[in-house]
Amino acid sequence: MPGRDSTDAVNEPAGPAPQLALLVEGGDRKGLLHDMTAAILLHDGDVHSVEILERGERSAIFWELDQVGDPDALIAALEGLDVVTTVRRLPSMFQIYGKRVIVVGAGAQVGQVAIGAVGEADRHNIRGEKISVETIPIVGEENLAAAVRAVARLPRAACLVLAGALMGGTVTEAVDEVRARGILVVSLNMAGSVPDHADLVVTDPIQAGVMAVMAVAATARFDVERVRGRRF
Amino acid sequence: MPGRDSTDAVNEPAGPAPQLALLVEGGDRKGLLHDMTAAILLHDGDVHSVEILERGERSAIFWELDQVGDPDALIAALEGLDVVTTVRRLPSMFQIYGKRVIVVGAGAQVGQVAIGAVGEADRHNIRGEKISVETIPIVGEENLAAAVRAVARLPRAACLVLAGALMGGTVTEAVDEVRARGILVVSLNMAGSVPDHADLVVTDPIQAGVMAVMAVAATARFDVERVRGRRF
Repeated sequence: MPGRDSTDAVNEPAGPAPQLALLVEGGDRKGLLHDMTAAILLHDGDVHSVEILERGERSAIFWELDQVGDPDALIAALEGLDVVTTVRRLPSMFQIYGKRVIVVGAGAQVGQVAIGAVGEADRHNIRGEKISVETIPIVGEENLAAAVRAVARLPRAACLVLAGALMGGTVTEAVDEVRARGILVVSLNMAGSVPDHADLVVTDPIQAGVMAVMAVAATARFDVERVRGRRF
Repeated sequence: MPGRDSTDAVNEPAGPAPQLALLVEGGDRKGLLHDMTAAILLHDGDVHSVEILERGERSAIFWELDQVGDPDALIAALEGLDVVTTVRRLPSMFQIYGKRVIVVGAGAQVGQVAIGAVGEADRHNIRGEKISVETIPIVGEENLAAAVRAVARLPRAACLVLAGALMGGTVTEAVDEVRARGILVVSLNMAGSVPDHADLVVTDPIQAGVMAVMAVAATARFDVERVRGRRF
């Protein structure tokens, strides 16, 4: 397994909170997103994330931005676009939902991992962390590999837990890709080659959920580097 | 409670899968997103969603597009941008993760709702549905209200489950906002005004998770209209 710095693995995918989060609402038309990016560029903004919430008759676009020179001037410029009616400052998604732990696999095991992860996330969130736990129960190697690969496309993803009885082949290739993106991978102790490619292998699903959350929580004393490659 | 068509409530937030999903990778620089929107606009594309996966030294941007006249010509135009190295067609996030059921509240109850929802999602996903279950254990009225409000900003969100012992005040206002966006709201039977504003109130947390998934699954025979406002 490639060596990697645990601090990077934990902090990079989730990243720091952006400077400015804006919800821009109004009518919709083609080219609206292009015109908004022009305004952002003109005000020196770097786009951290963008979410299109409504489109068609009405539009609602949520921007997370960095390096904006004059936020009020940018807000005025966005308000000046023909179809825009309101621009509001909001908390960023990172501030609200924080780091994401994603559990993929079969329903029975996914549910138990969720119990462990949610309970542990609750304990850390009470102390000021923000960790959310997401699950997708799924069947079939192809679907599984696609879901694992897509974890790298989820914003704020910090850890992936694989919860099943048999995973290998293209799922293992997808695990390598996700790890290369700096996302921590925890696997249940199962048949197939996936456990050999995970950062951590845990037999009990509740314990796997707890350890996954501990590994990404800044409020936990748990250093993945010290247990990487071990089986519990 | 305002009347609403159940079909809208279930299908609109998740919406149909987009025509084309592209992962564009390469170097990064200011104005890159603006130049990509220019290419998309030139090829008549309507942006369904956009996700910025990497930024800084390298860039990776995931586009979901509709109405693109000539996808190959658009891909060539994106490949023609100075810092872009590769453009790949991928399955859309909707095809992979599908509709989202989001559970917000206290750790103990959130975990039990997740058990019910994940087990039920597994049964439907086996039959061709795609439903994922997400949770954020959270404390404090302000944090809770922000998390509830932000559900309307999550792509593919179809149902919100509120899992706690006491919720009201600004959380209830946020529930009304989320419902106005067409997202179904299920509440546990709890103290506070939230249950009075939910589409459905369920006492047992496992049952609440199961019903939430049934309500959004196209493969389930469960019509929310027939039980709206009831307590189970």
